[in-house]
Amino acid sequence: MSKLVGGIEAGGTKFICAVGSGPDDIRAEIRIPTTQPEETLGKVIAFFKEQQEKYREQLRSIGIACFGPIDLNPHSSTYGFITSTPKPGWKNTNVVGAIRKALNLPIAFEHDVVGAAIGEAAWGAAKGLSDFIYITIGTGIGGGILVNGNPIHGLVHPEVGHMRLPHDLKKDPFLGNCPYHGDCFEGLASGPALEKRWGMPGYQIPDDHPAWSLEAEYIALAVSNLILTTSPQKIILGGGVMQRSHLFPVIRQKVLGILNGYVQARALLDDIEHYIVPPGLGNRAGILGSLAMAQQIV
Amino acid sequence: MSKLVGGIEAGGTKFICAVGSGPDDIRAEIRIPTTQPEETLGKVIAFFKEQQEKYREQLRSIGIACFGPIDLNPHSSTYGFITSTPKPGWKNTNVVGAIRKALNLPIAFEHDVVGAAIGEAAWGAAKGLSDFIYITIGTGIGGGILVNGNPIHGLVHPEVGHMRLPHDLKKDPFLGNCPYHGDCFEGLASGPALEKRWGMPGYQIPDDHPAWSLEAEYIALAVSNLILTTSPQKIILGGGVMQRSHLFPVIRQKVLGILNGYVQARALLDDIEHYIVPPGLGNRAGILGSLAMAQQIV
Repeated sequence: MSKLVGGIEAGGTKFICAVGSGPDDIRAEIRIPTTQPEETLGKVIAFFKEQQEKYREQLRSIGIACFGPIDLNPHSSTYGFITSTPKPGWKNTNVVGAIRKALNLPIAFEHDVVGAAIGEAAWGAAKGLSDFIYITIGTGIGGGILVNGNPIHGLVHPEVGHMRLPHDLKKDPFLGNCPYHGDCFEGLASGPALEKRWGMPGYQIPDDHPAWSLEAEYIALAVSNLILTTSPQKIILGGGVMQRSHLFPVIRQKVLGILNGYVQARALLDDIEHYIVPPGLGNRAGILGSLAMAQQIV
Repeated sequence: MSKLVGGIEAGGTKFICAVGSGPDDIRAEIRIPTTQPEETLGKVIAFFKEQQEKYREQLRSIGIACFGPIDLNPHSSTYGFITSTPKPGWKNTNVVGAIRKALNLPIAFEHDVVGAAIGEAAWGAAKGLSDFIYITIGTGIGGGILVNGNPIHGLVHPEVGHMRLPHDLKKDPFLGNCPYHGDCFEGLASGPALEKRWGMPGYQIPDDHPAWSLEAEYIALAVSNLILTTSPQKIILGGGVMQRSHLFPVIRQKVLGILNGYVQARALLDDIEHYIVPPGLGNRAGILGSLAMAQQIV
Protein backbone atom coordinates (compact mmCIF):
# COMPACT_ATOMS: atom_id res chain seq x y z
CA MET A 1 0.00 0.00 0.00
CA SER A 2 1.24 3.50 -0.78
CA LYS A 3 2.06 5.52 2.28
CA LEU A 4 0.69 8.96 3.09
CA VAL A 5 3.51 11.47 2.84
CA GLY A 6 4.15 15.16 2.33
CA GLY A 7 5.92 16.80 -0.58
CA ILE A 8 7.36 20.26 -1.18
CA GLU A 9 8.38 21.56 -4.59
CA ALA A 10 10.48 24.50 -3.41
CA GLY A 11 10.92 26.88 -6.34
CA GLY A 12 12.26 30.38 -6.72
CA THR A 13 8.78 31.71 -7.62
CA LYS A 14 6.48 29.49 -5.56
CA PHE A 15 6.47 26.61 -3.12
CA ILE A 16 3.93 23.86 -3.85
CA CYS A 17 3.09 21.65 -0.88
CA ALA A 18 0.99 18.49 -0.99
CA VAL A 19 -0.06 15.53 1.10
CA GLY A 20 -1.02 12.24 -0.51
CA SER A 21 0.19 8.85 -1.65
CA GLY A 22 0.48 9.41 -5.40
CA PRO A 23 -0.96 11.23 -8.42
CA ASP A 24 -4.45 9.75 -7.91
CA ASP A 25 -4.53 10.34 -4.19
CA ILE A 26 -3.70 13.96 -3.34
CA ARG A 27 -5.43 14.81 -0.04
CA ALA A 28 -4.43 18.47 0.13
CA GLU A 29 -2.34 20.90 -1.90
CA ILE A 30 -1.33 24.54 -1.56
CA ARG A 31 0.74 27.11 -3.49
CA ILE A 32 2.76 29.65 -1.55
CA PRO A 33 4.59 32.55 -3.25
CA THR A 34 8.33 32.57 -2.57
CA THR A 35 8.90 35.77 -0.56
CA GLN A 36 11.31 35.86 2.40
CA PRO A 37 12.44 32.56 3.98
CA GLU A 38 10.72 33.06 7.38
CA GLU A 39 7.40 33.99 5.79
CA THR A 40 7.48 31.28 3.11
CA LEU A 41 8.71 28.48 5.36
CA GLY A 42 6.27 29.64 8.06
CA LYS A 43 3.34 29.11 5.70
CA VAL A 44 4.75 25.75 4.57
CA ILE A 45 5.01 24.61 8.19
CA ALA A 46 1.50 25.88 9.03
CA PHE A 47 0.08 23.84 6.12
CA PHE A 48 1.79 20.64 7.21
CA LYS A 49 0.95 21.16 10.88
CA GLU A 50 -2.71 21.29 9.94
CA GLN A 51 -2.32 18.09 7.89
CA GLN A 52 -0.43 16.47 10.75
CA GLU A 53 -3.33 17.20 13.12
CA LYS A 54 -5.70 15.63 10.64
CA TYR A 55 -3.71 12.53 9.69
CA ARG A 56 -1.45 12.14 12.75
CA GLU A 57 0.91 9.11 12.47
CA GLN A 58 -0.44 8.33 9.00
CA LEU A 59 1.72 11.20 7.69
CA ARG A 60 5.10 9.50 7.61
CA SER A 61 7.71 11.75 6.00
CA ILE A 62 8.37 14.82 3.87
CA GLY A 63 10.19 15.08 0.53
CA ILE A 64 11.67 18.41 -0.55
CA ALA A 65 12.64 19.04 -4.19
CA CYS A 66 14.45 22.35 -3.85
CA PHE A 67 15.92 25.10 -6.02
CA GLY A 68 19.69 25.41 -5.65
CA PRO A 69 22.48 25.50 -5.10
CA ILE A 70 21.87 23.29 -2.06
CA ASP A 71 24.09 21.28 0.26
CA LEU A 72 23.41 17.56 -0.11
CA ASN A 73 26.41 16.25 1.83
CA PRO A 74 24.98 14.56 4.96
CA HIS A 75 28.34 14.99 6.73
CA SER A 76 28.38 18.75 6.16
CA SER A 77 27.39 21.26 8.85
CA THR A 78 25.23 23.02 6.25
CA TYR A 79 23.43 19.88 5.00
CA GLY A 80 19.91 20.79 3.91
CA PHE A 81 20.74 24.44 3.33
CA ILE A 82 20.17 26.56 0.24
CA THR A 83 23.73 27.89 -0.04
CA SER A 84 25.03 30.57 -2.43
CA THR A 85 21.85 31.56 -4.29
CA PRO A 86 21.60 35.10 -5.69
CA LYS A 87 17.91 35.09 -4.65
CA PRO A 88 17.55 37.92 -2.09
CA GLY A 89 17.23 36.68 1.50
CA TRP A 90 17.66 32.98 0.72
CA LYS A 91 21.43 32.65 0.94
CA ASN A 92 22.39 30.14 3.71
CA THR A 93 18.80 29.13 4.53
CA ASN A 94 18.42 25.93 6.56
CA VAL A 95 15.38 24.48 4.77
CA VAL A 96 15.62 20.90 6.04
CA GLY A 97 16.37 22.01 9.61
CA ALA A 98 13.38 24.35 9.78
CA ILE A 99 10.93 21.76 8.46
CA ARG A 100 12.30 18.87 10.53
CA LYS A 101 12.27 20.90 13.75
CA ALA A 102 8.66 21.98 13.23
CA LEU A 103 7.22 18.64 12.11
CA ASN A 104 9.57 16.05 13.65
CA LEU A 105 9.37 13.85 10.55
CA PRO A 106 12.09 12.22 8.39
CA ILE A 107 13.02 14.47 5.48
CA ALA A 108 14.27 13.55 1.98
CA PHE A 109 16.05 16.45 0.26
CA GLU A 110 17.11 16.82 -3.38
CA HIS A 111 17.59 19.27 -6.22
CA ASP A 112 14.34 20.26 -7.91
CA VAL A 113 15.31 18.62 -11.19
CA VAL A 114 16.35 15.39 -9.43
CA GLY A 115 12.99 15.44 -7.65
CA ALA A 116 11.27 15.72 -11.02
CA ALA A 117 13.34 12.80 -12.30
CA ILE A 118 12.31 10.69 -9.28
CA GLY A 119 8.67 11.60 -9.98
CA GLU A 120 9.02 10.45 -13.58
CA ALA A 121 10.53 7.16 -12.33
CA ALA A 122 7.65 6.62 -9.89
CA TRP A 123 4.67 7.51 -12.08
CA GLY A 124 5.83 9.02 -15.38
CA ALA A 125 7.89 8.37 -18.49
CA ALA A 126 10.74 6.56 -16.68
CA LYS A 127 8.57 4.10 -14.74
CA GLY A 128 10.66 1.16 -13.58
CA LEU A 129 13.94 2.45 -15.02
CA SER A 130 17.15 2.57 -12.98
CA ASP A 131 19.25 4.67 -15.38
CA PHE A 132 17.80 7.73 -17.08
CA ILE A 133 18.10 11.49 -17.42
CA TYR A 134 15.59 14.29 -16.99
CA ILE A 135 16.73 17.52 -18.65
CA THR A 136 14.85 20.78 -18.37
CA ILE A 137 15.46 23.39 -21.07
CA GLY A 138 13.94 26.77 -20.24
CA THR A 139 15.31 29.90 -18.56
CA GLY A 140 18.29 27.75 -17.66
CA ILE A 141 19.27 24.19 -18.52
CA GLY A 142 19.62 21.58 -15.80
CA GLY A 143 19.52 17.83 -15.47
CA GLY A 144 18.74 15.11 -12.97
CA ILE A 145 20.67 11.90 -13.66
CA LEU A 146 19.84 8.57 -12.07
CA VAL A 147 22.40 5.76 -12.23
CA ASN A 148 21.65 2.31 -10.80
CA GLY A 149 18.49 3.81 -9.29
CA ASN A 150 20.18 6.68 -7.43
CA PRO A 151 20.94 10.31 -8.27
CA ILE A 152 24.51 11.23 -9.15
CA HIS A 153 25.88 13.31 -6.30
CA GLY A 154 29.65 12.75 -6.21
CA LEU A 155 31.50 16.04 -6.00
CA VAL A 156 28.47 18.32 -6.45
CA HIS A 157 25.17 18.17 -8.32
CA PRO A 158 26.09 17.70 -12.02
CA GLU A 159 25.55 20.84 -14.07
CA VAL A 160 24.86 19.40 -17.51
CA GLY A 161 23.71 22.79 -18.78
CA HIS A 162 27.29 24.01 -18.81
CA MET A 163 28.75 21.28 -21.01
CA ARG A 164 30.84 22.52 -23.94
CA LEU A 165 29.63 21.58 -27.41
CA PRO A 166 30.85 22.01 -30.98
CA HIS A 167 29.87 25.52 -32.09
CA ASP A 168 30.33 26.41 -35.75
CA LEU A 169 30.68 30.21 -35.74
CA LYS A 170 30.13 30.37 -39.50
CA LYS A 171 26.73 28.72 -39.18
CA ASP A 172 25.88 30.40 -35.87
CA PRO A 173 27.85 33.58 -35.11
CA PHE A 174 25.98 34.10 -31.79
CA LEU A 175 28.63 33.93 -29.06
CA GLY A 176 26.31 32.59 -26.37
CA ASN A 177 24.99 34.32 -23.26
CA CYS A 178 26.29 32.29 -20.32
CA PRO A 179 28.04 34.74 -17.97
CA TYR A 180 30.56 32.02 -17.02
CA HIS A 181 31.20 30.20 -20.30
CA GLY A 182 29.72 32.13 -23.20
CA ASP A 183 28.80 29.35 -25.60
CA CYS A 184 28.20 26.35 -23.34
CA PHE A 185 24.97 24.33 -23.85
CA GLU A 186 22.92 26.77 -21.75
CA GLY A 187 24.63 29.77 -23.36
CA LEU A 188 23.61 28.51 -26.81
CA ALA A 189 20.25 26.80 -26.26
CA SER A 190 18.36 28.17 -23.22
CA GLY A 191 15.22 30.27 -23.69
CA PRO A 192 17.11 33.56 -23.11
CA ALA A 193 19.79 32.47 -25.64
CA LEU A 194 17.08 31.85 -28.25
CA GLU A 195 15.57 35.27 -27.54
CA LYS A 196 18.91 37.09 -27.68
CA ARG A 197 20.03 35.37 -30.91
CA TRP A 198 16.79 35.89 -32.84
CA GLY A 199 15.53 39.12 -31.29
CA MET A 200 12.23 37.65 -30.15
CA PRO A 201 11.10 35.31 -27.39
CA GLY A 202 10.93 31.61 -28.28
CA TYR A 203 7.14 31.50 -28.19
CA GLN A 204 7.01 34.09 -30.99
CA ILE A 205 9.37 32.13 -33.28
CA PRO A 206 7.29 30.20 -35.85
CA ASP A 207 7.72 26.42 -36.27
CA ASP A 208 9.33 26.75 -39.72
CA HIS A 209 11.97 29.29 -38.59
CA PRO A 210 15.64 28.14 -38.92
CA ALA A 211 16.00 28.82 -35.18
CA TRP A 212 14.55 25.40 -34.41
CA SER A 213 16.90 23.33 -36.52
CA LEU A 214 19.86 25.02 -34.80
CA GLU A 215 18.20 24.58 -31.39
CA ALA A 216 17.61 20.87 -32.09
CA GLU A 217 21.26 20.53 -33.19
CA TYR A 218 22.63 21.79 -29.85
CA ILE A 219 20.16 19.73 -27.84
CA ALA A 220 21.06 16.64 -29.92
CA LEU A 221 24.80 17.22 -29.34
CA ALA A 222 24.24 17.50 -25.59
CA VAL A 223 21.96 14.46 -25.53
CA SER A 224 24.55 12.46 -27.51
CA ASN A 225 27.31 13.42 -25.06
CA LEU A 226 25.06 12.40 -22.17
CA ILE A 227 24.40 9.03 -23.83
CA LEU A 228 28.14 8.51 -24.23
CA THR A 229 28.96 9.48 -20.63
CA THR A 230 26.01 8.28 -18.51
CA SER A 231 24.40 5.61 -20.74
CA PRO A 232 20.74 6.27 -19.86
CA GLN A 233 17.92 3.86 -20.72
CA LYS A 234 15.78 6.91 -21.53
CA ILE A 235 16.10 10.67 -21.90
CA ILE A 236 13.25 12.94 -20.82
CA LEU A 237 13.32 16.50 -22.18
CA GLY A 238 11.14 19.01 -20.35
CA GLY A 239 10.97 22.75 -19.64
CA GLY A 240 9.58 25.72 -21.53
CA VAL A 241 11.59 25.33 -24.74
CA MET A 242 10.54 21.67 -25.08
CA GLN A 243 6.88 22.72 -25.10
CA ARG A 244 7.63 23.17 -28.82
CA SER A 245 6.94 19.52 -29.51
CA HIS A 246 8.00 19.72 -33.16
CA LEU A 247 11.57 19.71 -31.77
CA PHE A 248 11.35 16.05 -30.69
CA PRO A 249 11.48 14.30 -34.09
CA VAL A 250 14.27 16.64 -35.25
CA ILE A 251 16.34 16.01 -32.11
CA ARG A 252 15.84 12.23 -32.46
CA GLN A 253 17.06 12.19 -36.06
CA LYS A 254 20.04 14.38 -35.24
CA VAL A 255 21.07 12.16 -32.30
CA LEU A 256 21.05 9.12 -34.59
CA GLY A 257 23.14 11.07 -37.10
CA ILE A 258 25.66 12.26 -34.49
CA LEU A 259 26.13 8.81 -32.90
CA ASN A 260 26.23 7.27 -36.40
CA GLY A 261 25.50 3.69 -35.33
CA TYR A 262 28.31 3.56 -32.78
CA VAL A 263 26.13 2.88 -29.73
CA GLN A 264 24.65 -0.54 -30.50
CA ALA A 265 21.49 -0.53 -28.39
CA ARG A 266 18.07 -1.47 -29.69
CA ALA A 267 16.29 1.10 -27.51
CA LEU A 268 18.22 3.75 -29.42
CA LEU A 269 18.46 2.31 -32.93
CA ASP A 270 15.01 0.72 -33.28
CA ASP A 271 12.81 2.69 -30.93
CA ILE A 272 14.10 6.22 -30.56
CA GLU A 273 10.52 7.63 -30.34
CA HIS A 274 10.33 5.97 -26.93
CA TYR A 275 13.94 6.78 -26.02
CA ILE A 276 13.88 10.59 -26.24
CA VAL A 277 10.54 11.68 -24.82
CA PRO A 278 8.64 14.50 -23.11
CA PRO A 279 7.88 14.20 -19.36
CA GLY A 280 5.00 11.85 -18.55
CA LEU A 281 3.87 14.05 -15.64
CA GLY A 282 4.17 17.43 -17.38
CA ASN A 283 4.50 20.26 -14.86
CA ARG A 284 3.45 17.91 -12.03
CA ALA A 285 6.79 16.07 -12.04
CA GLY A 286 8.28 18.26 -9.28
CA ILE A 287 5.53 18.02 -6.69
CA LEU A 288 4.84 14.34 -7.40
CA GLY A 289 8.58 13.67 -7.28
CA SER A 290 8.76 15.19 -3.81
CA LEU A 291 6.05 12.73 -2.69
CA ALA A 292 7.96 9.83 -4.29
CA MET A 293 11.14 10.95 -2.50
CA ALA A 294 9.25 10.97 0.82
CA GLN A 295 7.91 7.47 0.17
CA GLN A 296 11.43 6.16 -0.43
CA ILE A 297 12.44 6.91 3.17
CA VAL A 298 9.52 5.27 5.02
CA MET B 1 41.07 -10.51 6.29
CA SER B 2 41.57 -10.31 2.54
CA LYS B 3 40.28 -13.35 0.68
CA LEU B 4 42.24 -15.42 -1.81
CA VAL B 5 40.75 -14.92 -5.25
CA GLY B 6 41.63 -15.18 -8.93
CA GLY B 7 41.83 -12.38 -11.45
CA ILE B 8 41.97 -12.24 -15.24
CA GLU B 9 42.91 -9.15 -17.22
CA ALA B 10 41.61 -10.28 -20.60
CA GLY B 11 43.18 -8.09 -23.26
CA GLY B 12 43.34 -8.22 -27.03
CA THR B 13 47.10 -8.90 -26.95
CA LYS B 14 47.51 -10.95 -23.78
CA PHE B 15 45.59 -12.43 -20.88
CA ILE B 16 47.15 -11.89 -17.44
CA CYS B 17 45.96 -14.30 -14.74
CA ALA B 18 46.77 -14.07 -11.06
CA VAL B 19 45.84 -15.56 -7.70
CA GLY B 20 46.23 -13.56 -4.53
CA SER B 21 44.56 -11.27 -2.03
CA GLY B 22 46.01 -7.91 -3.08
CA PRO B 23 49.05 -6.10 -4.49
CA ASP B 24 51.33 -7.32 -1.71
CA ASP B 25 50.11 -10.91 -1.78
CA ILE B 26 50.23 -12.33 -5.32
CA ARG B 27 50.64 -16.11 -5.02
CA ALA B 28 50.94 -16.88 -8.74
CA GLU B 29 50.76 -14.97 -12.02
CA ILE B 30 50.95 -15.90 -15.70
CA ARG B 31 50.81 -14.11 -19.08
CA ILE B 32 49.12 -15.87 -21.99
CA PRO B 33 49.21 -14.46 -25.54
CA THR B 34 45.72 -13.85 -26.97
CA THR B 35 45.46 -16.31 -29.88
CA GLN B 36 42.23 -18.22 -30.59
CA PRO B 37 39.56 -18.43 -27.86
CA GLU B 38 39.82 -22.21 -27.26
CA GLU B 39 43.59 -22.10 -26.97
CA THR B 40 43.72 -18.95 -24.83
CA LEU B 41 40.86 -19.87 -22.51
CA GLY B 42 42.23 -23.43 -22.29
CA LYS B 43 45.51 -22.11 -20.90
CA VAL B 44 43.67 -19.76 -18.54
CA ILE B 45 41.63 -22.66 -17.19
CA ALA B 46 44.68 -24.91 -16.84
CA PHE B 47 46.41 -22.20 -14.75
CA PHE B 48 43.46 -21.79 -12.40
CA LYS B 49 42.83 -25.55 -12.12
CA GLU B 50 46.39 -25.94 -10.89
CA GLN B 51 45.85 -23.13 -8.37
CA GLN B 52 42.56 -24.68 -7.32
CA GLU B 53 44.30 -27.98 -6.57
CA LYS B 54 46.83 -26.10 -4.48
CA TYR B 55 44.49 -23.78 -2.56
CA ARG B 56 41.17 -25.71 -2.78
CA GLU B 57 38.29 -23.88 -0.99
CA GLN B 58 40.60 -20.99 -0.12
CA LEU B 59 40.22 -19.83 -3.74
CA ARG B 60 36.81 -18.20 -3.57
CA SER B 61 35.98 -16.47 -6.84
CA ILE B 62 37.28 -15.11 -10.14
CA GLY B 63 37.18 -11.53 -11.47
CA ILE B 64 37.44 -10.91 -15.21
CA ALA B 65 38.29 -7.44 -16.59
CA CYS B 66 37.69 -8.02 -20.28
CA PHE B 67 38.21 -6.27 -23.62
CA GLY B 68 34.96 -5.45 -25.37
CA PRO B 69 32.37 -5.04 -26.50
CA ILE B 70 30.93 -7.43 -23.91
CA ASP B 71 27.43 -8.29 -22.72
CA LEU B 72 26.94 -7.21 -19.10
CA ASN B 73 23.17 -7.65 -18.89
CA PRO B 74 22.57 -10.51 -16.43
CA HIS B 75 19.13 -11.12 -17.99
CA SER B 76 20.56 -11.58 -21.48
CA SER B 77 21.13 -15.00 -23.05
CA THR B 78 24.60 -13.80 -24.07
CA TYR B 79 25.61 -12.45 -20.64
CA GLY B 80 29.36 -12.86 -20.17
CA PHE B 81 30.10 -12.99 -23.91
CA ILE B 82 32.51 -10.93 -25.94
CA THR B 83 30.02 -9.84 -28.61
CA SER B 84 30.74 -7.93 -31.83
CA THR B 85 34.53 -7.55 -31.66
CA PRO B 86 36.46 -7.28 -34.93
CA LYS B 87 39.20 -9.44 -33.33
CA PRO B 88 39.39 -12.63 -35.49
CA GLY B 89 37.79 -15.67 -33.83
CA TRP B 90 36.55 -13.86 -30.71
CA LYS B 91 33.12 -12.71 -31.91
CA ASN B 92 30.39 -14.27 -29.69
CA THR B 93 32.79 -15.94 -27.25
CA ASN B 94 31.25 -17.09 -23.97
CA VAL B 95 34.09 -16.08 -21.64
CA VAL B 96 32.21 -16.24 -18.32
CA GLY B 97 30.47 -19.52 -19.24
CA ALA B 98 33.73 -21.28 -20.13
CA ILE B 99 35.52 -20.21 -16.94
CA ARG B 100 32.58 -20.87 -14.65
CA LYS B 101 31.95 -24.35 -16.11
CA ALA B 102 35.59 -25.36 -15.71
CA LEU B 103 36.17 -23.94 -12.21
CA ASN B 104 32.71 -23.90 -10.65
CA LEU B 105 33.40 -20.57 -8.91
CA PRO B 106 31.42 -17.30 -8.76
CA ILE B 107 32.54 -14.92 -11.51
CA ALA B 108 32.60 -11.10 -11.56
CA PHE B 109 32.72 -9.69 -15.10
CA GLU B 110 33.42 -6.15 -16.27
CA HIS B 111 34.96 -4.03 -19.01
CA ASP B 112 38.74 -3.83 -18.79
CA VAL B 113 38.70 -0.09 -18.07
CA VAL B 114 36.05 -0.52 -15.35
CA GLY B 115 38.21 -3.26 -13.84
CA ALA B 116 41.14 -0.85 -13.79
CA ALA B 117 38.91 1.75 -12.09
CA ILE B 118 37.89 -0.78 -9.43
CA GLY B 119 41.57 -1.60 -8.87
CA GLU B 120 42.34 2.09 -8.38
CA ALA B 121 39.49 2.30 -5.84
CA ALA B 122 40.78 -0.73 -3.93
CA TRP B 123 44.50 0.04 -3.78
CA GLY B 124 45.33 3.03 -5.99
CA ALA B 125 44.61 6.71 -6.56
CA ALA B 126 40.85 6.46 -5.86
CA LYS B 127 41.12 4.61 -2.54
CA GLY B 128 37.91 5.00 -0.59
CA LEU B 129 36.10 7.06 -3.24
CA SER B 130 32.58 6.23 -4.42
CA ASP B 131 32.44 8.56 -7.43
CA PHE B 132 35.37 8.86 -9.80
CA ILE B 133 36.49 8.31 -13.38
CA TYR B 134 39.37 6.38 -14.87
CA ILE B 135 40.13 7.44 -18.45
CA THR B 136 42.71 5.74 -20.62
CA ILE B 137 44.13 7.74 -23.54
CA GLY B 138 46.17 5.62 -25.91
CA THR B 139 45.39 3.75 -29.13
CA GLY B 140 41.75 4.45 -28.26
CA ILE B 141 40.09 6.48 -25.52
CA GLY B 142 37.85 4.77 -22.98
CA GLY B 143 36.57 5.38 -19.50
CA GLY B 144 35.34 3.55 -16.44
CA ILE B 145 32.92 5.63 -14.37
CA LEU B 146 31.89 4.77 -10.83
CA VAL B 147 28.83 6.46 -9.32
CA ASN B 148 27.77 5.80 -5.73
CA GLY B 149 30.36 3.00 -5.66
CA ASN B 150 29.11 1.13 -8.74
CA PRO B 151 29.99 1.23 -12.45
CA ILE B 152 27.59 2.97 -14.81
CA HIS B 153 25.95 0.31 -16.95
CA GLY B 154 22.53 1.62 -17.94
CA LEU B 155 21.92 1.17 -21.64
CA VAL B 156 25.44 0.02 -22.54
CA HIS B 157 28.97 0.67 -21.28
CA PRO B 158 29.53 4.45 -21.64
CA GLU B 159 31.84 5.33 -24.51
CA VAL B 160 33.34 8.61 -23.30
CA GLY B 161 35.94 8.52 -26.06
CA HIS B 162 33.30 9.42 -28.60
CA MET B 163 32.04 12.58 -26.94
CA ARG B 164 31.84 15.63 -29.24
CA LEU B 165 33.94 18.63 -28.26
CA PRO B 166 34.47 22.17 -29.53
CA HIS B 167 36.90 21.97 -32.44
CA ASP B 168 38.27 25.22 -33.85
CA LEU B 169 39.20 24.37 -37.45
CA LYS B 170 41.23 27.56 -37.80
CA LYS B 171 43.47 26.57 -34.89
CA ASP B 172 43.44 22.86 -35.71
CA PRO B 173 42.47 22.00 -39.31
CA PHE B 174 42.93 18.23 -38.67
CA LEU B 175 39.51 16.66 -39.27
CA GLY B 176 39.97 13.79 -36.84
CA ASN B 177 40.43 10.10 -37.54
CA CYS B 178 37.47 8.36 -35.89
CA PRO B 179 35.84 6.18 -38.58
CA TYR B 180 32.41 6.84 -37.00
CA HIS B 181 32.57 10.49 -35.96
CA GLY B 182 35.65 12.15 -37.45
CA ASP B 183 36.47 14.73 -34.81
CA CYS B 184 35.10 13.24 -31.59
CA PHE B 185 37.41 13.16 -28.51
CA GLU B 186 39.12 9.96 -29.68
CA GLY B 187 39.27 11.22 -33.27
CA LEU B 188 41.12 14.34 -32.08
CA ALA B 189 43.20 13.18 -29.14
CA SER B 190 44.07 9.45 -29.28
CA GLY B 191 47.62 8.29 -29.99
CA PRO B 192 46.86 7.56 -33.69
CA ALA B 193 45.23 11.02 -34.05
CA LEU B 194 48.38 12.65 -32.66
CA GLU B 195 50.49 10.65 -35.11
CA LYS B 196 48.31 11.41 -38.12
CA ARG B 197 48.08 15.14 -37.33
CA TRP B 198 51.78 15.72 -36.72
CA GLY B 199 53.31 13.06 -39.00
CA MET B 200 55.20 11.31 -36.22
CA PRO B 201 54.27 9.03 -33.34
CA GLY B 202 53.57 10.72 -30.01
CA TYR B 203 56.75 9.41 -28.36
CA GLN B 204 58.83 11.27 -30.98
CA ILE B 205 57.09 14.61 -30.40
CA PRO B 206 59.25 16.76 -28.07
CA ASP B 207 57.81 18.23 -24.87
CA ASP B 208 57.93 21.82 -26.19
CA HIS B 209 56.07 21.04 -29.44
CA PRO B 210 52.68 22.83 -29.90
CA ALA B 211 51.08 19.37 -30.24
CA TRP B 212 50.91 19.07 -26.47
CA SER B 213 49.07 22.30 -25.76
CA LEU B 214 46.40 21.27 -28.28
CA GLU B 215 46.30 17.74 -26.85
CA ALA B 216 45.87 19.13 -23.32
CA GLU B 217 43.08 21.39 -24.59
CA TYR B 218 40.98 18.49 -25.91
CA ILE B 219 41.61 16.38 -22.83
CA ALA B 220 40.66 19.36 -20.62
CA LEU B 221 37.42 19.91 -22.57
CA ALA B 222 36.48 16.24 -22.21
CA VAL B 223 37.41 16.21 -18.51
CA SER B 224 35.33 19.38 -17.95
CA ASN B 225 32.32 17.81 -19.66
CA LEU B 226 32.73 14.70 -17.51
CA ILE B 227 32.86 16.84 -14.36
CA LEU B 228 29.65 18.57 -15.44
CA THR B 229 27.82 15.32 -16.24
CA THR B 230 29.09 12.73 -13.76
CA SER B 231 30.49 14.89 -10.92
CA PRO B 232 33.49 12.72 -9.95
CA GLN B 233 35.45 13.20 -6.72
CA LYS B 234 38.61 12.44 -8.72
CA ILE B 235 39.73 11.93 -12.33
CA ILE B 236 42.47 9.43 -13.12
CA LEU B 237 44.12 9.80 -16.53
CA GLY B 238 46.08 6.77 -17.75
CA GLY B 239 47.15 5.12 -21.00
CA GLY B 240 50.09 5.62 -23.34
CA VAL B 241 49.52 9.31 -24.14
CA MET B 242 49.35 10.20 -20.44
CA GLN B 243 52.84 8.75 -19.93
CA ARG B 244 53.85 12.25 -21.04
CA SER B 245 53.52 13.59 -17.52
CA HIS B 246 54.14 17.21 -18.54
CA LEU B 247 50.53 17.12 -19.79
CA PHE B 248 49.08 16.99 -16.27
CA PRO B 249 49.77 20.59 -15.09
CA VAL B 250 48.61 21.96 -18.46
CA ILE B 251 45.37 19.94 -18.38
CA ARG B 252 44.68 21.06 -14.79
CA GLN B 253 45.08 24.75 -15.63
CA LYS B 254 42.92 24.43 -18.73
CA VAL B 255 40.14 22.65 -16.80
CA LEU B 256 40.07 25.51 -14.28
CA GLY B 257 39.93 27.97 -17.17
CA ILE B 258 37.12 26.13 -18.97
CA LEU B 259 34.95 25.73 -15.85
CA ASN B 260 35.75 29.33 -14.87
CA GLY B 261 34.75 29.02 -11.22
CA TYR B 262 31.29 27.67 -11.93
CA VAL B 263 31.71 24.35 -10.11
CA GLN B 264 32.17 25.42 -6.49
CA ALA B 265 34.03 22.47 -5.01
CA ARG B 266 37.16 22.75 -2.91
CA ALA B 267 38.65 19.53 -4.31
CA LEU B 268 38.65 21.23 -7.69
CA LEU B 269 39.36 24.86 -6.86
CA ASP B 270 41.93 24.46 -4.06
CA ASP B 271 43.52 21.09 -4.72
CA ILE B 272 43.43 20.28 -8.43
CA GLU B 273 46.86 18.56 -8.24
CA HIS B 274 45.12 15.80 -6.29
CA TYR B 275 41.93 15.96 -8.36
CA ILE B 276 43.32 15.16 -11.83
CA VAL B 277 45.98 12.50 -11.33
CA PRO B 278 47.84 9.59 -12.94
CA PRO B 279 46.88 6.03 -11.95
CA GLY B 280 48.23 4.90 -8.58
CA LEU B 281 48.75 1.34 -9.81
CA GLY B 282 50.30 2.15 -13.21
CA ASN B 283 49.93 -0.76 -15.62
CA ARG B 284 48.92 -3.08 -12.75
CA ALA B 285 45.46 -1.49 -12.41
CA GLY B 286 43.80 -4.08 -14.69
CA ILE B 287 45.04 -7.28 -13.09
CA LEU B 288 44.71 -5.89 -9.54
CA GLY B 289 41.24 -4.60 -10.43
CA SER B 290 40.18 -8.09 -11.48
CA LEU B 291 41.24 -9.36 -8.03
CA ALA B 292 39.31 -6.54 -6.34
CA MET B 293 36.22 -7.40 -8.44
CA ALA B 294 36.51 -11.03 -7.33
CA GLN B 295 36.77 -9.98 -3.68
CA GLN B 296 33.58 -7.92 -3.99
CA ILE B 297 31.51 -11.06 -4.64
CA VAL B 298 32.72 -13.26 -1.77
